[in-house]
Amino acid sequence: MMDVYISLLHFPVYDKNRRIVTTAVTNMDIHDIARAARTYDLAGYFLVTPIREQQAMVQELIDHWTKGAGGEYNPVRRKAFELLRVVPDFEAVRAEVQRRGGAIPLTVGTSAGRGPRALSFEALRRRMESDDGSVILTLGTGWGLEKKFFESLDEVLEPIDGRSEYNHLSVRSAATVMLDRLRGRRSQ
Amino acid sequence: MMDVYISLLHFPVYDKNRRIVTTAVTNMDIHDIARAARTYDLAGYFLVTPIREQQAMVQELIDHWTKGAGGEYNPVRRKAFELLRVVPDFEAVRAEVQRRGGAIPLTVGTSAGRGPRALSFEALRRRMESDDGSVILTLGTGWGLEKKFFESLDEVLEPIDGRSEYNHLSVRSAATVMLDRLRGRRSQ
Repeated sequence: MMDVYISLLHFPVYDKNRRIVTTAVTNMDIHDIARAARTYDLAGYFLVTPIREQQAMVQELIDHWTKGAGGEYNPVRRKAFELLRVVPDFEAVRAEVQRRGGAIPLTVGTSAGRGPRALSFEALRRRMESDDGSVILTLGTGWGLEKKFFESLDEVLEPIDGRSEYNHLSVRSAATVMLDRLRGRRSQ
Repeated sequence: MMDVYISLLHFPVYDKNRRIVTTAVTNMDIHDIARAARTYDLAGYFLVTPIREQQAMVQELIDHWTKGAGGEYNPVRRKAFELLRVVPDFEAVRAEVQRRGGAIPLTVGTSAGRGPRALSFEALRRRMESDDGSVILTLGTGWGLEKKFFESLDEVLEPIDGRSEYNHLSVRSAATVMLDRLRGRRSQ
């Protein structure tokens, strides 16, 4: 069984006009994905932003909910925030996961669009259950992960197929659905 | 095939100390669930609050994104907001769905806790595909739907089982996962 990590990138991603930008960290993405990461028993959640002020802001949140009075007041939030780390770039995610697991992690990109190579949720789920090592699921904010970075990842996960041509879930909702498809338990 | 509706109740729900309260409408719940409703091809999304000022605020948002300059500027948002209605109580949801569909709708409660009666996601999915008429999925904000109201609903859906004892998804993430389990298309 693989250790599963999720990472949310604020750079390099596209804006509406397909320019490469750094997006702002948003509070709801932090909270909702941290709660989902704990619910689906992940090994960690990495928030990636190159902006120092935003790194410091996220670190303050983490400290507040894991060390301070916040963690005693709200243990539910503490358990979610314990999984969260903030790092400047994806190389730092890769290095930290490798340091913890000992082997080179599998990196998996996600996108709302369908490309030529795509692993199905079922195929990745089976692989995560049968293989050893670690996997890093990688999500972009804004209008998605920059092309060159995206192509540098080992695998690409198929997009979430709802029941319409409309594919505009928020990144926090999309992250939770992905984890549910890859990790959720189902009764019949 | 049933027409599927989702409703998010801000009353009657519990607070942290199990008092019955009215919670505040939050912007992210409006946006994220509207986008999920459109992605999973629902027939409508009802936001339920008895507070007139909050009804007016939500109606302004709806008008802005569906009628005003907002809808032209952002058609993605328009398509999501077209599904949204704001109503004062659950009776208004029931009445409107019955008016549209002609028959008495099936009402389904959801909860993060496991109770004595619970329909599995698979069972409800099959029923939604084989039956006619309409179904209203009902979610509570705060610490969940008040007991008497909850018991007045026709059916109860099993809780989302992640992969841990931790079951604290945000209501917007939980709504999206439910819709994915009930309506999402899956490849093998």
